[in-house]
Amino acid sequence: MSSSINQQILLKNRPKGEPKESDFVLVETTVPEPGKDEVLNRTIYLSLDPYMRGRMSDRESYAEPVALENVMVGGTVSQVIKSNHPQFSVGDFVLGYDGWQAYGVSKGETLRKLDPNQARISYALSVMGMPGMTAYCALLDIGQPQAGETVVVSAASGAVGSIAGQIAKIKGCRVVGIAGSDAKCDYVLKELGFDACINRKTQELSSALKDACPKGIDIYFDNTGGSILEAVLHNINLGARIPLVGMISQYNAENPPSGPNLMPLLNKRALIKGFLVGDYEHRRSEFINDVSQWLRGGKLKYKEDVIEGLENAPHAFIGLLEGKNFGKLIVKFAKDSTQ
Amino acid sequence: MSSSINQQILLKNRPKGEPKESDFVLVETTVPEPGKDEVLNRTIYLSLDPYMRGRMSDRESYAEPVALENVMVGGTVSQVIKSNHPQFSVGDFVLGYDGWQAYGVSKGETLRKLDPNQARISYALSVMGMPGMTAYCALLDIGQPQAGETVVVSAASGAVGSIAGQIAKIKGCRVVGIAGSDAKCDYVLKELGFDACINRKTQELSSALKDACPKGIDIYFDNTGGSILEAVLHNINLGARIPLVGMISQYNAENPPSGPNLMPLLNKRALIKGFLVGDYEHRRSEFINDVSQWLRGGKLKYKEDVIEGLENAPHAFIGLLEGKNFGKLIVKFAKDSTQ
Repeated sequence: MSSSINQQILLKNRPKGEPKESDFVLVETTVPEPGKDEVLNRTIYLSLDPYMRGRMSDRESYAEPVALENVMVGGTVSQVIKSNHPQFSVGDFVLGYDGWQAYGVSKGETLRKLDPNQARISYALSVMGMPGMTAYCALLDIGQPQAGETVVVSAASGAVGSIAGQIAKIKGCRVVGIAGSDAKCDYVLKELGFDACINRKTQELSSALKDACPKGIDIYFDNTGGSILEAVLHNINLGARIPLVGMISQYNAENPPSGPNLMPLLNKRALIKGFLVGDYEHRRSEFINDVSQWLRGGKLKYKEDVIEGLENAPHAFIGLLEGKNFGKLIVKFAKDSTQ
Repeated sequence: MSSSINQQILLKNRPKGEPKESDFVLVETTVPEPGKDEVLNRTIYLSLDPYMRGRMSDRESYAEPVALENVMVGGTVSQVIKSNHPQFSVGDFVLGYDGWQAYGVSKGETLRKLDPNQARISYALSVMGMPGMTAYCALLDIGQPQAGETVVVSAASGAVGSIAGQIAKIKGCRVVGIAGSDAKCDYVLKELGFDACINRKTQELSSALKDACPKGIDIYFDNTGGSILEAVLHNINLGARIPLVGMISQYNAENPPSGPNLMPLLNKRALIKGFLVGDYEHRRSEFINDVSQWLRGGKLKYKEDVIEGLENAPHAFIGLLEGKNFGKLIVKFAKDSTQ
């Protein structure tokens, strides 16, 4: 690929239900020139995250949808190619939001410089970035875990759940994961050190939760919504807290399905609260301090599921919504010279 | 009725769905003698409240059910007939929990003496008692109303909703009620001073809420659950708070119905929290101070729906679950000499 040709994936159709590869189109365009205070980046890693399904739809959400025929949005780790901004030099690694494309131009003030000596640069998209901060803030600020409490985490091997559960362990909780395969449960138990993990595809959830949580559930870190939330509600303790972080079970639903009966909230004076990481910017420095310390101390483990090639992003994203990834899903476009 | 004969209403069957009068039986027994530190009371007023439906069922709840062939529980305002407790004298008026019977014996420490000069003694069952404190604590502690916000209250003419809405007005909010008849809506608007009231039986809720809440909904004081909660969720603002205080729409349901889709909680980072007044005992003195001041100042109006005769309690209670009462439902058994 010549450096004067850009590759971009555009949103072609608003998916109905499960996205199809034909809802996206790969196009070649000219690499743009950066304007005043702008920076031209070459993408190394693109983050694929469940929230992107919401951006493909024009249903009401917390953010505007991507316009048809526009580049799909997404967090990126890139290297600076040209810079018209005093704070960035050619060769710098940056975290940005250039989306599903090989080259992107950004305002300098929207970029954050990365230090490859501090952590793997791809971690800026995962454990040190949005998914990590989601886990940290939703668990600590809404969940408020106390030592000895029982915490259940859905999508437990995933980008957010794996961190939420490990932080709950660090805080002295009993942690029970829910995941979609035996291999994922194995990883959650043996690598991440959760106390138990339920395979939601082979076990009856409500009774499995009862067995795995003999003292009931104090916190449910909800990445999924749907039937898992319903089963959890049958097992919550007095004063339980439920950060509602994601509802991946219904992102492909054409019509919003019914929710769980909420009587357990009343009986147990429990709390469900919607979470969006953008509201927690004030917690960023504490998050970075704590997580980098835990990573260095080996208390936090992290798994990336790296797909090669921009052209494979649609297929990988479709699999993400079905739980086919194993670890944080990122797409690698170009060589990572830091590795 | 001789003073040596007691009348009691016992729970005969656990109702299936809507309670029937045949689920209760009126029996005559001997008036009991108070033991050490006990007090014999003659009931003047019995409070009928939706929570009692839960006590008739052996489904899981925050409290034990009433055993079959036992006296139905309930808050009572009574006069002391005999006292073996140093703090109570014959003729005192007391708030207790003697249930659906003409005479009851209670431990002295479970009773609270009432001053007929301070407020109507029946108010200890309503605006100055459990329903008032429910409205006060759920609105202020979970709802946290700010001047200028929009507050929606379901069962707006009822024992709890009527107070919640008036307190929200005192706090400077726009207050929109939801009630079950034009007469109730009239009362809510003209007597209680709400800004708008929706008749849930004749209006389409979601669009009526949109019209009545042009700036969206910041707080929903939920007495009902069900379809009203669902319609409200379509109209909530960022950071909305929903104290879940009652779910009267489903107390008669044989199987718990589905709940609303919770995506709006995620999109709006909103909160639903179950409320039980027993958790807020630490707020009692502030509640009593504020509410008595508001009552004296004419800022808080209150309506009682008084039924005469213990034998009419089952019929009145059945109507309560259907919204047939108009104001706080209480049953009067004996003359109130303070009036």
